[in-house]
Amino acid sequence: MALYVVDLFGVAVFAISGALTAGRKRMDLFGVLVVAVITAIGGGTVRDLLLDRRPIFWIEDPTYLLVSVLAAAATLAYARFLRPPRYSLLVADAFGLAVFTFIGATTAYEAGVPAPIVVLMGTITGVAGGMMRDVLCSEVPLVLRREVYATAAIAGATVYVLLTNAGVDGAIVALLTISTVFLLRLTALRLDLHIPSPGPKDVENSTSHDERL
Amino acid sequence: MALYVVDLFGVAVFAISGALTAGRKRMDLFGVLVVAVITAIGGGTVRDLLLDRRPIFWIEDPTYLLVSVLAAAATLAYARFLRPPRYSLLVADAFGLAVFTFIGATTAYEAGVPAPIVVLMGTITGVAGGMMRDVLCSEVPLVLRREVYATAAIAGATVYVLLTNAGVDGAIVALLTISTVFLLRLTALRLDLHIPSPGPKDVENSTSHDERL
Amino acid sequence: MALYVVDLFGVAVFAISGALTAGRKRMDLFGVLVVAVITAIGGGTVRDLLLDRRPIFWIEDPTYLLVSVLAAAATLAYARFLRPPRYSLLVADAFGLAVFTFIGATTAYEAGVPAPIVVLMGTITGVAGGMMRDVLCSEVPLVLRREVYATAAIAGATVYVLLTNAGVDGAIVALLTISTVFLLRLTALRLDLHIPSPGPKDVENSTSHDERL
Repeated sequence: MALYVVDLFGVAVFAISGALTAGRKRMDLFGVLVVAVITAIGGGTVRDLLLDRRPIFWIEDPTYLLVSVLAAAATLAYARFLRPPRYSLLVADAFGLAVFTFIGATTAYEAGVPAPIVVLMGTITGVAGGMMRDVLCSEVPLVLRREVYATAAIAGATVYVLLTNAGVDGAIVALLTISTVFLLRLTALRLDLHIPSPGPKDVENSTSHDERL
Repeated sequence: MALYVVDLFGVAVFAISGALTAGRKRMDLFGVLVVAVITAIGGGTVRDLLLDRRPIFWIEDPTYLLVSVLAAAATLAYARFLRPPRYSLLVADAFGLAVFTFIGATTAYEAGVPAPIVVLMGTITGVAGGMMRDVLCSEVPLVLRREVYATAAIAGATVYVLLTNAGVDGAIVALLTISTVFLLRLTALRLDLHIPSPGPKDVENSTSHDERL
Repeated sequence: MALYVVDLFGVAVFAISGALTAGRKRMDLFGVLVVAVITAIGGGTVRDLLLDRRPIFWIEDPTYLLVSVLAAAATLAYARFLRPPRYSLLVADAFGLAVFTFIGATTAYEAGVPAPIVVLMGTITGVAGGMMRDVLCSEVPLVLRREVYATAAIAGATVYVLLTNAGVDGAIVALLTISTVFLLRLTALRLDLHIPSPGPKDVENSTSHDERL
């Protein structure tokens, strides 16, 4: 139950990220909503398709669609009057990544696939939505360019597999997996934001952080 | 039977749209055919994958592939000598969108999914092919930028759900669903084409209409 | 068994191609690995999804993932010190295309689908990974622009269908299918590389050959 709530929170955060990115691309209102929904549910959809887990999670429970549409609509309304709070959004995005990675790894583990596939499915669930967002916005996906984004997901999913195979209690596994992704990603953000840029590559990275979610 | 014929007509129209868009992108002959086929059958393929409806419609009935390849080849031959009739193509495209939306909604309804998913599947069937076309041509998808494109599909699919749940006769549902999408889209085209552009955004929109299908 | 080895060789070659393309796009280390893996296994994944062949080949046998990650890592290490041998890579890529086309056509044939679908699945298995690579790198897919790339796959898959339906022995079918794709693609490369460019289009093509893969 608690997991369901944080999962919906992750969906809302990713929908906001999609709406903000698409909002800079001269799309019409509906286009922004489409990109927001795809960002929010894309990763889990690819995971369910690859694992042949039916029905797809948002077909089984349309609450996910509802939450992503509402989050995107609220974002558009908010952005019309106020500047989005960038750093708060990056923190929320890191939390969404952490939750999605845990849920993806759990789903794959319960499907009985080999350990490397569990890690991969956790990663895909965390990052594929953001990749689709950027492909639809005709950009090289940010999650492939940002330091320690998918890397954080891989690390967390690996923690999940190791602890689960060691027989650790489920609640502790959840806590440690989510913490690993979240703290790694936050640390990377902190370093990017505060260490002076040594060269053109880092300059570009921190610019991205300012301009994009 | 009549529905099968208009469905094939929709496939042909979308293949033409794909061939014309790809033809401006320095692709070789085969590349243009690939984009045309993906534009024509992409929406229905995503729908069938998400609903786990097997076999995929064009694997079950290769006529769809044949029609899309023939339409793309005829388009390439025609475009070598004559200018494509832009406005007629936009009208045909609106009709294709209407038919695909109806067929997608019907397929989802028969699969027994909740009403919001029926609306979404109608929309996906109508617009996903065009989104793939533009992603392959490395552009921000036109269907996300054009006013009242996917919006028309959503409206039509909603009409479908409301009428079907109210027990209205199937032929009337088909007629009203298709008319809703088609007329909404045509109205949007008319307004875009005839109302003076008030600002840079509308200028860009009408330019798109001139340059693209 | 021999086929399994050449299949893994094809996976490695495509992973190298993905790593080299992504390496020019300011991605971080992980981003390059993601693109390399998608390039290597993307075509077969789409094939298995469309044919509903479960589990997906790399979920059933994670060796494919391992080989693609190792090939990408080795490429990154090598490219740090030495220039990649372009022509050798193009030849290896042509061989990978040939093997993937044969395996895709075989998989589809064994699934009992109609002949045009067998040809299409061979082609998809050969070219979809490269298309995803270029979409993720925000470019119009090279496989759609290069002369006689997908065309070679189509020709080979057609040879496969004709010979198999004629009752020819499996080993001979494999040899002739793979040879058809490989030799057609090599011939096209030779002509591109050695015939003087008659116009801007050919100039662009040969530039692509120098700069990519």
